[in-house]
Amino acid sequence: MGDKLILHEYAQSGNCYKIRLTAAHLGRRIERVEYDIMKGETRTPEFLTNINAVGRIPVLQVGQRFLPESNAACFYLADGSALIPEDRFARADMLRWMFFEQYHHEPNIATVRFWVMFVGGDALSEVQRAQLPAKRLAGERALQQMDDHLALRNWFVGEAPTLADICLYAYSHVAEEGGFDLSLYPHVRAWLDRMADLPGHIVMEA
Amino acid sequence: MGDKLILHEYAQSGNCYKIRLTAAHLGRRIERVEYDIMKGETRTPEFLTNINAVGRIPVLQVGQRFLPESNAACFYLADGSALIPEDRFARADMLRWMFFEQYHHEPNIATVRFWVMFVGGDALSEVQRAQLPAKRLAGERALQQMDDHLALRNWFVGEAPTLADICLYAYSHVAEEGGFDLSLYPHVRAWLDRMADLPGHIVMEA
Repeated sequence: MGDKLILHEYAQSGNCYKIRLTAAHLGRRIERVEYDIMKGETRTPEFLTNINAVGRIPVLQVGQRFLPESNAACFYLADGSALIPEDRFARADMLRWMFFEQYHHEPNIATVRFWVMFVGGDALSEVQRAQLPAKRLAGERALQQMDDHLALRNWFVGEAPTLADICLYAYSHVAEEGGFDLSLYPHVRAWLDRMADLPGHIVMEA
Repeated sequence: MGDKLILHEYAQSGNCYKIRLTAAHLGRRIERVEYDIMKGETRTPEFLTNINAVGRIPVLQVGQRFLPESNAACFYLADGSALIPEDRFARADMLRWMFFEQYHHEPNIATVRFWVMFVGGDALSEVQRAQLPAKRLAGERALQQMDDHLALRNWFVGEAPTLADICLYAYSHVAEEGGFDLSLYPHVRAWLDRMADLPGHIVMEA
């Protein structure tokens, strides 16, 4: 893996942070190029032509190749490391939680945080406003499912942290910025503390 | 992999079909247990206790272990086979399209199909109805992104079909049941034909 790594990102995005957090746990250096999504910097002709034709970040650049989708980028970085279980079922179970993260967690918890904190309640469209209650409920369900799972174990899969923990950490640890009350999920809170105590951990603002 | 495989499923669900399609390509036998989601059969106390506490299908049962999330189940089945590229970047790129499928494709194309075909337009809630135009647009964008990608290649990743193709096939090939006009995406249509011509292919109704 001699290719130079460049992360095209917006630092406040949990999807970008999870890639940096994976790299930090692996002790792997990664260059960063910052785009302000609030100013449309991922919609410029240059970005659309050279980085990602659909104008989204994060994109992990590996040499001259480009990899969108945050969890795929984490998998690329961690492939062959202890962050991905060797056991076949455990490896699939890790991916299960990563797909859970993108399907049940991020579209609710991250989107509500984005709407509340970055767009601002008054600036929401009617359709967005109509979706808020359902997204809040679905986000609470995702947190409850995580809490139930963590009631009996320290990490999502097996006996050590994996990419499932890293990917779920990214937006869980800032869920309160979207108005989610983490005191309702004590096992999630204890797991967040365990994650932050790991050697190699970096904060989102790092 | 001597564990007995049981797929807990609803046959009309593309998420269930993609697991059967993966197994078919691998020549791997899989038992099926059918639940009618329209009759709430995945919300019974038995299902919630024994199969999946959040009442969702598909769940792939591997011996006495249970694996939700369709794309994770496909990965479990195909792990070590030619359906997952050996090259590190290609493997991550395959996952990129599988995460794309669950984030950009399924919540739009599959959800619109479900609302139109199974729930029925008149039975939609107000919030669902308000989301329809945005979901239709996002589904069209996903199909356009696939079409652009397939304009230059036969398969999503590399020179042969992978799980990315199988997972994207499941709801793409029935997108017209949700009112998406596939004639607008000729490269997608040609790829759907290539998929259906593969040895080992099975139809959704098999």
